[in-house]
Amino acid sequence: MAQPQEPEGNGSGKPALRIGMVGYAFMGAAHSQGWRTAGRVFDLPRQPVLAAICGRDGAAVRAAADQHGWAAAETDWRALIARDDVDLVDICTPGDSHAEIALAALAAGKHVLCEKPLANSVEQAETMSAAAEAAYARGQLAMVGFNYRRVPATALARRMVAEGRVGTLRHVRVSYLQDWLVDPRAPLTWRLRRELAGSGSLGDLGAHIVDLAQHLAGERLAGVSALTETFVRQRPVAGAAHGLGAISADGTGQVTVDDAALFTARFTSGALASFEATRYATGRKNALRIELNGERGSLAFDLERLNELWYHDGTEPGARAGFRRILVTEPDHPYLDAWWPPGHGLGYEHTFVHQAHDLVHAVAEGRRPDPSFADGLQVQRVLAAVEESAEKNSVYTPIAV
Amino acid sequence: MAQPQEPEGNGSGKPALRIGMVGYAFMGAAHSQGWRTAGRVFDLPRQPVLAAICGRDGAAVRAAADQHGWAAAETDWRALIARDDVDLVDICTPGDSHAEIALAALAAGKHVLCEKPLANSVEQAETMSAAAEAAYARGQLAMVGFNYRRVPATALARRMVAEGRVGTLRHVRVSYLQDWLVDPRAPLTWRLRRELAGSGSLGDLGAHIVDLAQHLAGERLAGVSALTETFVRQRPVAGAAHGLGAISADGTGQVTVDDAALFTARFTSGALASFEATRYATGRKNALRIELNGERGSLAFDLERLNELWYHDGTEPGARAGFRRILVTEPDHPYLDAWWPPGHGLGYEHTFVHQAHDLVHAVAEGRRPDPSFADGLQVQRVLAAVEESAEKNSVYTPIAV
Amino acid sequence: MAQPQEPEGNGSGKPALRIGMVGYAFMGAAHSQGWRTAGRVFDLPRQPVLAAICGRDGAAVRAAADQHGWAAAETDWRALIARDDVDLVDICTPGDSHAEIALAALAAGKHVLCEKPLANSVEQAETMSAAAEAAYARGQLAMVGFNYRRVPATALARRMVAEGRVGTLRHVRVSYLQDWLVDPRAPLTWRLRRELAGSGSLGDLGAHIVDLAQHLAGERLAGVSALTETFVRQRPVAGAAHGLGAISADGTGQVTVDDAALFTARFTSGALASFEATRYATGRKNALRIELNGERGSLAFDLERLNELWYHDGTEPGARAGFRRILVTEPDHPYLDAWWPPGHGLGYEHTFVHQAHDLVHAVAEGRRPDPSFADGLQVQRVLAAVEESAEKNSVYTPIAV
Amino acid sequence: MAQPQEPEGNGSGKPALRIGMVGYAFMGAAHSQGWRTAGRVFDLPRQPVLAAICGRDGAAVRAAADQHGWAAAETDWRALIARDDVDLVDICTPGDSHAEIALAALAAGKHVLCEKPLANSVEQAETMSAAAEAAYARGQLAMVGFNYRRVPATALARRMVAEGRVGTLRHVRVSYLQDWLVDPRAPLTWRLRRELAGSGSLGDLGAHIVDLAQHLAGERLAGVSALTETFVRQRPVAGAAHGLGAISADGTGQVTVDDAALFTARFTSGALASFEATRYATGRKNALRIELNGERGSLAFDLERLNELWYHDGTEPGARAGFRRILVTEPDHPYLDAWWPPGHGLGYEHTFVHQAHDLVHAVAEGRRPDPSFADGLQVQRVLAAVEESAEKNSVYTPIAV
Repeated sequence: MAQPQEPEGNGSGKPALRIGMVGYAFMGAAHSQGWRTAGRVFDLPRQPVLAAICGRDGAAVRAAADQHGWAAAETDWRALIARDDVDLVDICTPGDSHAEIALAALAAGKHVLCEKPLANSVEQAETMSAAAEAAYARGQLAMVGFNYRRVPATALARRMVAEGRVGTLRHVRVSYLQDWLVDPRAPLTWRLRRELAGSGSLGDLGAHIVDLAQHLAGERLAGVSALTETFVRQRPVAGAAHGLGAISADGTGQVTVDDAALFTARFTSGALASFEATRYATGRKNALRIELNGERGSLAFDLERLNELWYHDGTEPGARAGFRRILVTEPDHPYLDAWWPPGHGLGYEHTFVHQAHDLVHAVAEGRRPDPSFADGLQVQRVLAAVEESAEKNSVYTPIAV
Repeated sequence: MAQPQEPEGNGSGKPALRIGMVGYAFMGAAHSQGWRTAGRVFDLPRQPVLAAICGRDGAAVRAAADQHGWAAAETDWRALIARDDVDLVDICTPGDSHAEIALAALAAGKHVLCEKPLANSVEQAETMSAAAEAAYARGQLAMVGFNYRRVPATALARRMVAEGRVGTLRHVRVSYLQDWLVDPRAPLTWRLRRELAGSGSLGDLGAHIVDLAQHLAGERLAGVSALTETFVRQRPVAGAAHGLGAISADGTGQVTVDDAALFTARFTSGALASFEATRYATGRKNALRIELNGERGSLAFDLERLNELWYHDGTEPGARAGFRRILVTEPDHPYLDAWWPPGHGLGYEHTFVHQAHDLVHAVAEGRRPDPSFADGLQVQRVLAAVEESAEKNSVYTPIAV
Repeated sequence: MAQPQEPEGNGSGKPALRIGMVGYAFMGAAHSQGWRTAGRVFDLPRQPVLAAICGRDGAAVRAAADQHGWAAAETDWRALIARDDVDLVDICTPGDSHAEIALAALAAGKHVLCEKPLANSVEQAETMSAAAEAAYARGQLAMVGFNYRRVPATALARRMVAEGRVGTLRHVRVSYLQDWLVDPRAPLTWRLRRELAGSGSLGDLGAHIVDLAQHLAGERLAGVSALTETFVRQRPVAGAAHGLGAISADGTGQVTVDDAALFTARFTSGALASFEATRYATGRKNALRIELNGERGSLAFDLERLNELWYHDGTEPGARAGFRRILVTEPDHPYLDAWWPPGHGLGYEHTFVHQAHDLVHAVAEGRRPDPSFADGLQVQRVLAAVEESAEKNSVYTPIAV
Repeated sequence: MAQPQEPEGNGSGKPALRIGMVGYAFMGAAHSQGWRTAGRVFDLPRQPVLAAICGRDGAAVRAAADQHGWAAAETDWRALIARDDVDLVDICTPGDSHAEIALAALAAGKHVLCEKPLANSVEQAETMSAAAEAAYARGQLAMVGFNYRRVPATALARRMVAEGRVGTLRHVRVSYLQDWLVDPRAPLTWRLRRELAGSGSLGDLGAHIVDLAQHLAGERLAGVSALTETFVRQRPVAGAAHGLGAISADGTGQVTVDDAALFTARFTSGALASFEATRYATGRKNALRIELNGERGSLAFDLERLNELWYHDGTEPGARAGFRRILVTEPDHPYLDAWWPPGHGLGYEHTFVHQAHDLVHAVAEGRRPDPSFADGLQVQRVLAAVEESAEKNSVYTPIAV
């Protein structure tokens, strides 16, 4: 990338929304796809422009900029934030740096999109939420990246709950099952160290399902009772051991986060919920499943079949009732008037396109984005209560308000 | 049924096993079908004979005898037990009478089959288990009716676990979801009163899933953390209010059992488990679902599709791996060499045919039946720990040994 | 079976309907289960009694009588028909003997149930249908055993079509897929010889789907265009070669029936249909699948999941429409008020219980049974048109009326 | 779009492949997404650049250029072809203009990508195929857009067939079911007029399934026997009636193409196939389903669940065999090393990204693209045989070679 180039994305005649992104791994690639595509599919009030990307390794970040179509590259996130041609800072780094970057970006007058979990501690999240609230008064927006709210099927579920199709809620059961740690020989990484990742399955997978369950239910959890476990406590250290703690004589290092977290919960309405987050569910690759049962109906969703929402209308005559598979690809389903004809499904990355769509609209209209940093903080409080309950022999632990 | 008739079932030249059954409602009908059919499909060492059936209402029990093909009818279970032409007493009554009848039958020298849950309290179950052990020394057998072990698909799952196809166990998640109490106007019945039913979803549905989870895992639970809830505390009393407690001015009576029970658990090996039993899962009719995840593979089953077992072989190359639907209808699947060609599925009632098959073999061979009263007692202890944990703010509660 | 015994089944105080069955292989076992069970589950106007069973091998038929609970055994079907204690003759033999037995039984004044296909030729079927019509005038009934009409889910489908829920019919697609001939080393049997079986997949599987398609559609086929194929033309002869034709030097004999039959068709209304019957669909064990699409809705069924009917209500708003899984286990579903609670599924053999139920009612009420021999004849005409079209280069061939 | 802008897509330092696209409706949007994304996800040898887009309506095409990110807009396809800054012409117009544009583009020295069906007649397709062959000798490539070969799951199916996992092929059954014409009040459009669309379901849906079936089978069809039907022959004309033929007094115009096409077929190997293409399958939105059965195994795919391939390994022991759901999202599945982690599915539009990927590689490496215009011609010959058979009373009609 010898010369700075015209940022990808404009030519539309619309005012630009210039993005600066920190981080370029899995989430960075997904967010790039979201920013690049949103304005090409939706008729947005402002055109997202991929202005600058930031990473510590200069060669790598320049390669990433070329690959993903960012106009400029930076190696210092403070420099990125300082750029005049950046309107919005998109934070795709591990959780331990979220607070520092987000606070600096808000202080610099930028809008902020921050990946989940919002922070590695409730304290950090509280500071971020307060800063976001103050920034909102100055016209800046701050949003947390719970992208699974933006699958058309989950957005339809939310709409149907709001329409009263579930009725008085009795049960929510939700699990997020992956299997990439089943093999005890899989190596130690930053994701398995508390000081870097904050927690294990709980923060990575559990944060998603806590947010989604509360979002779909339209209410918050009141308290939890939890079990967590680390099945494999030592794993081989492969390559650079930087930041992975002490290495044992046998070449292994210690896993300091949970491998799995299970918890039961009560919603404020009295409905019951169960949660499970694990990386040891052999054969389940990305099985985020949620089911809501209420007095009038039920809804069920599985991320491995993300174009489908299952609905049982409890008000139908019993002889014709049944869970129906709604193929969520119709023009009057959320987000779908801009996409393909019925039956032509979307994929995982479209959640980031929709996230960009929603955030651009919020910025253009000065609306508080949803989910806000306050929502991210509340999820953090649920995760903290889960950890506290797990430490205290699973005793039921109320969520701080 | 003016004249006693020749008991249905013999003419086979085989020694008879003469059954006396107490109770003739849902379970009585299902057990009748099991006893009537087992010797017609399987080549059994002894031929079950439907000798006598017992119920309190003389006209009703005689009608049931005619309907289901029992040779004689009794209105006093003590008279049934006293009959010379009864070898085995099959107890299909509500849980509050199990202990008394079973103890008397064992004392009278009969074999016993007792519906689950074994009793309404741990104390009763302990007495029954001790009596069964003593009777076994005298050559009498006592079995508890956890019929869901006898679905061919669950029996195949057990065999595959025993073969090592799941490997080191990490997770068991199991739920039993029904929906017949969703409507708050559904009437109060004996099943919703503690003094008659012992508990609600917990004893009715939870007992099944605790037994099945432990049976399939091949190990026992060490402790539990539980939430229970009664969503609808008053229900209309329709018709006879006998035994349903005080009636309020508005014509309702009190529900004194749980509507739903959720618990997490640890197996003795350290594997984690989650359980949910409810009658409020709108649209789920009989959804007993269980999934086991281990280091080598996973198995999943759903009672609403009882001819299928899903298996993921974790040792396959990733590019061709996936959960496979085993249609459990092949001649080398459990119980199936006696039934229909591949693909011709069985139903719910066949679990009772297989239960009869297994018990007749155990009797003929003098083998301790499986599950024994001791197994029933252990399940009772798990249920008691669930109730204790629920009362104590969900604190983790070890299972008594 | 040293002594004749009291026929199984009575003691009910109801008038008996005494069955004499010819044949005791797969179909004989299934019919036995049907006759034995129907009166124990349903409150029938007459009680089926298993009076006598007939087969050529004396020892084998006596063993079958003992196994399945028949009071007497015969080795000559003419003797069976001549018995005074037989009211209804149930023909479970291969197709080449159907006509002779059925005609004799009707002549002897018996009711007749005849397995499908009704006969091995249209000519035989015409004679049988005429004889049945004449017998009906004398008060005798004749029914053909298309048992798949009696799965609760297909019976519900028929009811929903009759209610207008499918509307103007556009498409019916139906296949019956099995795989037991995939291995070219599987041996030659009577089922693979035209002189015994009449045809291959066509008569065995195709007869079922032609009947079911017409029954559910509520109208008849007008014409067909067909392809048939015999993939493996020589197969090893194992054991007795009686009736299997000439044996080649390499120990194989010739397959003289179709392995697979595919045909497209027009219904009289102009709706289109496609049919496929094969024994070479690797991994499909008993996959009878049918889907109907009409202007108002669609229905789909798969025999491998026989407790489910899938329904798409085309009049619903698109945003909430989808194929729903009706678990056909509710008390207001066909046949199900006599069985188990919702969600407790039935199996394959229950079609024979329901067939017995329907035939007993028809006999008691003097109603023409459904499907009649005339219906069986019409299916035979469709199969003949399929064979004719296949011989004539697939040219569209009208069905004779 | 006041000023020409720098074409989207470059800045990568790689040689550009400059695309000129004709048409900007559904297919134009999908192809734009493909060209825009391919170089951002895959490391391509040349970077696709969205150089110019062409449409007849000047304002509309300029809006489309802005929306989809094309640098320039043209209103005359001859002008587009004449541009020096276009290396490859991508034809997304209705079938009646394919031949003229493709021949001109090849004559102008451009590479060509042409949407399916290749042409509206065999004659046109023959001319195009000959021109493509001649152009290939000059270093130009020509590809036809059968994008469904590029779903990862179908690409995996092709790989597994090539590895011998299906073995000797017996059956292919394939259908493409949509429902957007079920309502007889849906208006007449160009797609329902023969002179514009060439045919109805047959060319639109049937072309896809003929290509996919032959591609997956790895062999060609030998002959077909077909039924076609137009269920609704008059439809209301809404808005501009241009090109829709005569309007009746009742405001309707004539549908001159097929609504549905069913055909059976033989492959050259002797395997049998069935095909169905319809727009009247109520509730089926985009159900392209294909199943292959062979002596060693079976494969099944449904476009409505496009991240899944179902595989039955016929060489497994029967007790553990079953159709397995391969979630085609693993890094060693086709195309997937560049995308997301396992379980994070793709959507419909990714087939166009993969098409772009494959064509860019073919251009860079001078390889003949797959599927070629010769492949497109052969599919056209199959469709012609279908129409001929349908006209000749379904008689079996060989495919011209």
